[in-house]
Amino acid sequence: MLGLGEMGSAIARAFLAHGYRTTVWNRTASKAVPLAEAGAVAAPTAAEAVAASPLVVMCLLDGAAVDEVLSALGDTVEGKVLVNLTSGSPAQARANERWANERGARYIDGKIMGDPPYVGTPNARFLFSGTAFEAHEETLSLLGSVSYHGEDAGAAAVEFLAQVAMGYELLLGFLHTLKVMRSEGADIIGFADRFAASLTAYQPLLTSIAKAIESREYPPDLGPLDVQAALMDDLISHRESLGVEAVRMRETRQLMERRIADGHGGQGFSSLFELLG
Amino acid sequence: MLGLGEMGSAIARAFLAHGYRTTVWNRTASKAVPLAEAGAVAAPTAAEAVAASPLVVMCLLDGAAVDEVLSALGDTVEGKVLVNLTSGSPAQARANERWANERGARYIDGKIMGDPPYVGTPNARFLFSGTAFEAHEETLSLLGSVSYHGEDAGAAAVEFLAQVAMGYELLLGFLHTLKVMRSEGADIIGFADRFAASLTAYQPLLTSIAKAIESREYPPDLGPLDVQAALMDDLISHRESLGVEAVRMRETRQLMERRIADGHGGQGFSSLFELLG
Repeated sequence: MLGLGEMGSAIARAFLAHGYRTTVWNRTASKAVPLAEAGAVAAPTAAEAVAASPLVVMCLLDGAAVDEVLSALGDTVEGKVLVNLTSGSPAQARANERWANERGARYIDGKIMGDPPYVGTPNARFLFSGTAFEAHEETLSLLGSVSYHGEDAGAAAVEFLAQVAMGYELLLGFLHTLKVMRSEGADIIGFADRFAASLTAYQPLLTSIAKAIESREYPPDLGPLDVQAALMDDLISHRESLGVEAVRMRETRQLMERRIADGHGGQGFSSLFELLG
Repeated sequence: MLGLGEMGSAIARAFLAHGYRTTVWNRTASKAVPLAEAGAVAAPTAAEAVAASPLVVMCLLDGAAVDEVLSALGDTVEGKVLVNLTSGSPAQARANERWANERGARYIDGKIMGDPPYVGTPNARFLFSGTAFEAHEETLSLLGSVSYHGEDAGAAAVEFLAQVAMGYELLLGFLHTLKVMRSEGADIIGFADRFAASLTAYQPLLTSIAKAIESREYPPDLGPLDVQAALMDDLISHRESLGVEAVRMRETRQLMERRIADGHGGQGFSSLFELLG
């Protein structure tokens, strides 16, 4: 285990708890002490830690720290399987895989959703990608709920960033809407509860929107665009009257207007996908 | 029942189905024919329809149509209860209430979530507000699932617009994220299913964010802002590399930076509310 921050330490402990012979290394050596007390072998260098095991798990601060450690390791990774759980982009994951393959190592990329105390329980979610995953699924499943996103090494990062992005889309929109409710003197906790309760109604809609985009046939999901556009005007003028931002509503209305002008006013919201980017 | 479009006709039918003596009126009289065949009395003018019943339900095209009908009714509304289910703004609802009260009538505003075929079933949701609601709750509950949002006549419209706004925030963010997934060659239907499954995890978070805002104490909900800001950079640079918009992520990062600069980097996402509008 390379990298003994909170997350790396939690991962090392999960392996130890399942009886795995675990060698640990951290740039600041003192972080290895509690793990050595828990039964791990503390290696003085990353290369010595790598030499000790066939499976090498990294969880470092960021991509720059990964680059630094990989440079120091060089050809010592030959024949190993590198599992990199450091946060980073799909492009970094793909570059790491190329680096590993050029040195005779295999590469698995992973992204973690959940906090260190949950590691080793189903409440820590681990997303993986890369061709070497299947052979190590059993070991990696000790860390939490595991999902596999494909042979493309970048796929776990793609999924992670998309899931996180949706969280921020939802939650920033929610903050602005709470601003509306507050301006109108409404009970914001009551609204939060009611909107939370309505979320399950979006579950089938999300799937049907993705299917509409896949097939490029766009049924009038939330009603035809002609009708939805009028509602968007109500939303915008209400927010303007309160001085609350309406960025997404204006964007939605513009997309709807373009789609209607193109003769697709009978289609649904999902058809706006055709106009993106 | 004033207004016999698809929704108005469905409402009239729901009253008839429960044995209510129902008088109907529509500007284009031919729309009353099928309802008359179903047992309603077709009135030749709106004023004559109003004269026939203590409870007057309106469901018209828009606010302008409501203004026109109310002008024509004038003082004939005295002693009546007007229930207006036409789409429109909180300000329109409040203005309608004032108009009614000045003429000795009471006013209930309502907004409908659901399509006409569901009227009379729990799948049609009716949001109501206004002081006269309680006395007519039983009758109005025949129309679907009913919720009451307070004495402010505008409260049903406020709730309706907020619920609808959240839908568009969620779904437009989803379209952009599907664009990312498509650009990365990922399976968008699989992603939709996984994100849909994750929605329930947001339910307690929404309530806790509203409570944090109410108390103005901001625990590190999604992690401290210091840590979240780095993730926002990953999101933005990934989207930029694909040419996909990142409006909400840039906004979120700017708000986070301001909050961190103000010395609140240890607080959570909810604290961004302090910086809005």
